[in-house]
Amino acid sequence: MNQISVREAAAFLHASDRILLLCHQNPDGDTLGSAYGLYHALIRCGKQVRILCSDEIPPKMRYLAEGYQNADWEPETVVAVDIADLQLFGEALAPYRERVDLCIDHHPSNTGYAARVCLSPESAANCELIVQVIDALGVTIDSAMATCLYTGIVTDTGCFQFANVTAKTHQMAARLMDIGCNWRMIHRVIFESKPMNLVMLEREVLNHLEFYCQNRVALITVTLEMLERYQLSEAELDGITAITRKIEGVEVGITLKQRGEELYKVSMRSMEHVNVSQICQDFGGGGHIRAAGCTLSGPIASEKQRLIAAVAKAMKDGQPEE
Amino acid sequence: MNQISVREAAAFLHASDRILLLCHQNPDGDTLGSAYGLYHALIRCGKQVRILCSDEIPPKMRYLAEGYQNADWEPETVVAVDIADLQLFGEALAPYRERVDLCIDHHPSNTGYAARVCLSPESAANCELIVQVIDALGVTIDSAMATCLYTGIVTDTGCFQFANVTAKTHQMAARLMDIGCNWRMIHRVIFESKPMNLVMLEREVLNHLEFYCQNRVALITVTLEMLERYQLSEAELDGITAITRKIEGVEVGITLKQRGEELYKVSMRSMEHVNVSQICQDFGGGGHIRAAGCTLSGPIASEKQRLIAAVAKAMKDGQPEE
Repeated sequence: MNQISVREAAAFLHASDRILLLCHQNPDGDTLGSAYGLYHALIRCGKQVRILCSDEIPPKMRYLAEGYQNADWEPETVVAVDIADLQLFGEALAPYRERVDLCIDHHPSNTGYAARVCLSPESAANCELIVQVIDALGVTIDSAMATCLYTGIVTDTGCFQFANVTAKTHQMAARLMDIGCNWRMIHRVIFESKPMNLVMLEREVLNHLEFYCQNRVALITVTLEMLERYQLSEAELDGITAITRKIEGVEVGITLKQRGEELYKVSMRSMEHVNVSQICQDFGGGGHIRAAGCTLSGPIASEKQRLIAAVAKAMKDGQPEE
Repeated sequence: MNQISVREAAAFLHASDRILLLCHQNPDGDTLGSAYGLYHALIRCGKQVRILCSDEIPPKMRYLAEGYQNADWEPETVVAVDIADLQLFGEALAPYRERVDLCIDHHPSNTGYAARVCLSPESAANCELIVQVIDALGVTIDSAMATCLYTGIVTDTGCFQFANVTAKTHQMAARLMDIGCNWRMIHRVIFESKPMNLVMLEREVLNHLEFYCQNRVALITVTLEMLERYQLSEAELDGITAITRKIEGVEVGITLKQRGEELYKVSMRSMEHVNVSQICQDFGGGGHIRAAGCTLSGPIASEKQRLIAAVAKAMKDGQPEE
């Protein structure tokens, strides 16, 4: 991997023009905040810039694109932001897979697919790194940029709660607030606003909450029938896995999302002891130690029983010795 | 009101001993964080210090009292922290109502009941002010103090989300993280852990969610019977007002908590337009423009109707002109 410094990345951007900024598919606040924040800074440098993403901006994040003018020219320079892996390019970005000149990213798992990689694994959000790049460009961050950059920080840290947060994250937030980012609107839109039909679906899900292993395992199920009845897509179920995880005493939270008549996607979270990655691997899935997933196909009642048995076994095995 | 500066407050504390720190009833993270943070600093100054509160520390916040040694002597100096009004003293603090030497507070509504008031309405949390007092005492903040102070900041700002947050709040958080406050534990305990019976009560509350004014007003009710059935106290309903406020399209969220056969406490929140302080004042209560409260006494059905009518009128009056 050809790693370059923030200064070198800024120098490279200064020497470039017709810059295409790429966001990862299923875009979140960090990839979009990175691209739109950098867009404004590069425009200020007199560059021609445009942004491309394989999926649409989620409706609630459309404020990020305020002031963005789409253009239609063949890019000279291609820059990926917050994209760890070519697998996250999606269809619209496919033509650029072999020609990414620069990748600005904070994922330790970055595969090094770009000609130059400016990587900062210690940044909680990629937008923290973008702030440094804009500083190195010599551009004064304005409120429009600050709104984009703050969005990346709050979304990638779960509002300053995830383990990736550092003192620097808060210092950046302070600075962006001083500049005048519209942080109240961001919080309202991102964290304080849940569609009414999602509230209703969550209520129904709660009414069928299941407990196992002396209440140390909690399970919820979202059926296709429910999604249809509440007119929601699976992508809109954002945050539903938190329901089980937040219950005191629950070590393993399981969310089943139906995808076909006998097909369920499993999301599994653990608090402290259980390696859910291992359990999910045994069911053909995988993930992290505390957050993993797999798929169940077959009659759901017996499949669920099989899964719960595996979790119960892992709980027993993982028990600290008396 | 005899207002004094942070420096003067610190000088007063330096000249005092046998200091009793008072917390408000139904104690939250900010009054407790203020008291326990200041406790450690004053102990470091060689003072004898103890803390008094009319109610017990909520179980999840017991970590704040780590390292605290209770004592039993007659106080020479009485200091109230984060207490705006004598009405918040409760029973155990009653003997000190007339003899509060110093009040360190951040509520603009402070009634000035103390001989000296060190007031900082621009502080989102009272713990921000306590940090300044400890600095003025010349004490180096250690990780135990930082854990208490960070707790006050995250609880009184809803994890950096409320309108009271300033850039300074984040700068303080950064500093306390650098000092080594146990912020991960704090977030897990405060925000990511909900007792199972509270989850069950919330589920029941959701099942009886009421909507008015074309779904722009949402109302939930917690009855005494529910509290008894789920073995919860009103103090443990922490965060229940968020249920209505977070529903997309809801402008006014109302929470009714029963306190007697025909007695209900009302908490009212608005998003953007409606002045709920005005509505609550008309019902004998008060508060802030976006967060206020009052009490309903009498047959609840008709009282509720009267309240909803007032809200509907305020919504209509507050409507932007077409």
